[in-house]
Amino acid sequence: MQNFVFHNPTKIIFGKNTIAAIGSETAQLGKRALLVYGKTSCKKSGSYDQVTRALTEAGVSVIEHGGVRSNPTLDHVRSGIKKAREHGCDVIVALGGGSVIDSAKAISAGAVVDHDVWKFFTGKKSIKKNLPLTTVLTIAAAGSEMNSGMVITNEQTREKFGFGNKRLFPRVSILDPEITFTVPADYTAYGAVDAISHVLEFYMTTRDLATPVQDRLMEGLIENSMDACNRCLQTPDDYNARADLMWTATLALNGLTAAGLGRVGFPMHMIEHSLSALYDIPHGAGLSIIIPGWLAWFSGHSPRRVAQLGKRVFGKSIAGLQTEEQQAMATCRALKKWFDSVHSPTSLSAVSIPATDIPAIAENALKLAKVWRLSEYTRERIEEILHRCL
Amino acid sequence: MQNFVFHNPTKIIFGKNTIAAIGSETAQLGKRALLVYGKTSCKKSGSYDQVTRALTEAGVSVIEHGGVRSNPTLDHVRSGIKKAREHGCDVIVALGGGSVIDSAKAISAGAVVDHDVWKFFTGKKSIKKNLPLTTVLTIAAAGSEMNSGMVITNEQTREKFGFGNKRLFPRVSILDPEITFTVPADYTAYGAVDAISHVLEFYMTTRDLATPVQDRLMEGLIENSMDACNRCLQTPDDYNARADLMWTATLALNGLTAAGLGRVGFPMHMIEHSLSALYDIPHGAGLSIIIPGWLAWFSGHSPRRVAQLGKRVFGKSIAGLQTEEQQAMATCRALKKWFDSVHSPTSLSAVSIPATDIPAIAENALKLAKVWRLSEYTRERIEEILHRCL
Repeated sequence: MQNFVFHNPTKIIFGKNTIAAIGSETAQLGKRALLVYGKTSCKKSGSYDQVTRALTEAGVSVIEHGGVRSNPTLDHVRSGIKKAREHGCDVIVALGGGSVIDSAKAISAGAVVDHDVWKFFTGKKSIKKNLPLTTVLTIAAAGSEMNSGMVITNEQTREKFGFGNKRLFPRVSILDPEITFTVPADYTAYGAVDAISHVLEFYMTTRDLATPVQDRLMEGLIENSMDACNRCLQTPDDYNARADLMWTATLALNGLTAAGLGRVGFPMHMIEHSLSALYDIPHGAGLSIIIPGWLAWFSGHSPRRVAQLGKRVFGKSIAGLQTEEQQAMATCRALKKWFDSVHSPTSLSAVSIPATDIPAIAENALKLAKVWRLSEYTRERIEEILHRCL
Repeated sequence: MQNFVFHNPTKIIFGKNTIAAIGSETAQLGKRALLVYGKTSCKKSGSYDQVTRALTEAGVSVIEHGGVRSNPTLDHVRSGIKKAREHGCDVIVALGGGSVIDSAKAISAGAVVDHDVWKFFTGKKSIKKNLPLTTVLTIAAAGSEMNSGMVITNEQTREKFGFGNKRLFPRVSILDPEITFTVPADYTAYGAVDAISHVLEFYMTTRDLATPVQDRLMEGLIENSMDACNRCLQTPDDYNARADLMWTATLALNGLTAAGLGRVGFPMHMIEHSLSALYDIPHGAGLSIIIPGWLAWFSGHSPRRVAQLGKRVFGKSIAGLQTEEQQAMATCRALKKWFDSVHSPTSLSAVSIPATDIPAIAENALKLAKVWRLSEYTRERIEEILHRCL
């Protein structure tokens, strides 16, 4: 096991009828909030009304910054920063999923510096201070509600970049599973795929294989993401299923799984980010396209971890196979089959991306490989993986 | 899943050569430390020298308060409080295992109030403030290094009482697995039993059975406690085994497993505390005596959870049995067999406690049942369980 520091100070308030707590929790941090949210769904579901009422009743004035879209953009972050400054906001409140929370994080850091916020993403500047952030989560997926990472798309340069900084942990995140009853089937599945991908990245890219307790936690989280998602799709207003998926997705990327693994990477995300930057497809959908191809490529030279995962998560059908290579390839197929079963796309062709686009996708991914220091991912390797995703 | 608040602010610094960090971390919190530690082992292992040197070099003056014993006593806590006041200590540093850290927690709370510290334990007063606390852990067992609980024995009244308060989270805990190379085989085993017991208590006493992700995490922690302990016993200086057991024991009682379970109890600890209060046997040894008996009694009327645990942790040998009752009883036997294999006692007779003592043990346990609001544990029930532990 490698040395690590684990320090996750986010306070989680989880359960039914918890949204109103956003008022008192936020009031302890500031008096003028920039409320960051998405498009229409939070107004339809009533959560927008609940949040604004709670803030107002707690004496927090609200400056609105709606309109965050999935694959959130730098332009919208910049306009949020401008607004936060103009109105003298001293706290940021995010109402939404990963895109909204990531935008809110970027605004919280950009609002207190003189330079452009994108410099944080390209590594030219680092975050030394920011405005405090509280969140109300509306979809089980990204884990941003309890971690210190964020991902933003620069539309001008067509770069979707992300990074982490310890100042970006939300102070308080409210997770009310009932809010997610109205998340449609496709985005429920994409959320589960996202949670699985977060666990899978670390499970596969650790250089230290002596991590038994982390392995068991990660296997449990992957298995449970699938089970909980299946139950949510069957009965969208099943409280326990929604709660199970929500907490699983949070635990999937809150630092716990990575503790002790040493340096881990996000190679699947690296390639997927190019898909969503270039084609604007949902992140989870992009992931279910990339994961089976990446995993099949990875199994070709390092079958052991893939085989272990398969034996423990999918059980007898995989454990019964003779070689690690066979077990690993069967694991890839089993995971792909599950993605298919929840109607998350599993090939580039399913989202009408032709093979002739592969060089352009690889070109884009290479830029992020550089920023994320995944130098082993050459153009040739990325293209090879993408060909397995056709 | 039940509503919950999860907020664990302890910073964990884990790994090789991390002990020296106690200096700079403590210096951020205070300038005059009460150093709480046990008997001779930390001096033999060199960790005492490392800690005092690091504190001194960081400009923190050290007031010594050694001599904490296992099943730590109220008298020793009271003398620590007196010393902390006399010397104007503004931070507490614990170097030890659960007994030392719990003593340090009690001192941190008692040092800033005018009333006797025991009033916190009997529920007559609650903790509103305390001195900040840092720790250097020397044995994988209690989980106190990353939680807000503490247990102290009042020798006058022969009561071993415990409770939790959010102010009691250590600010920083340093976990260097190399420190545990010299933990002898018996205490290594008792530590693993303690970790298992913490997970088991919540797994069995939740009133909400719709907690799939927590179940999977808990099953992974129990399975891994046994595996890691086996490896530590085989090769006491196997770094990865020691690291694995250390982090597993911390995760076993840091709030994660209980999140969403609703009200959980510590009935096995309730009975065990009477054993260690009356006979001063090691906590882990007392637990391995009580657990099989409690679990067999519990399986008699609620076999489902016990059977689920057995099927997932012990696999085919249990899953192959026909009824839940059979599976549950086989699980009790499998766990007892593992305790036997690591030479942790599994009967009252193994530690020379006769059946004629059972009424006195039950009488003592009843007092804690009242404080912990385990009213379903009548004298008859406790005696019935104890008879199963003979």
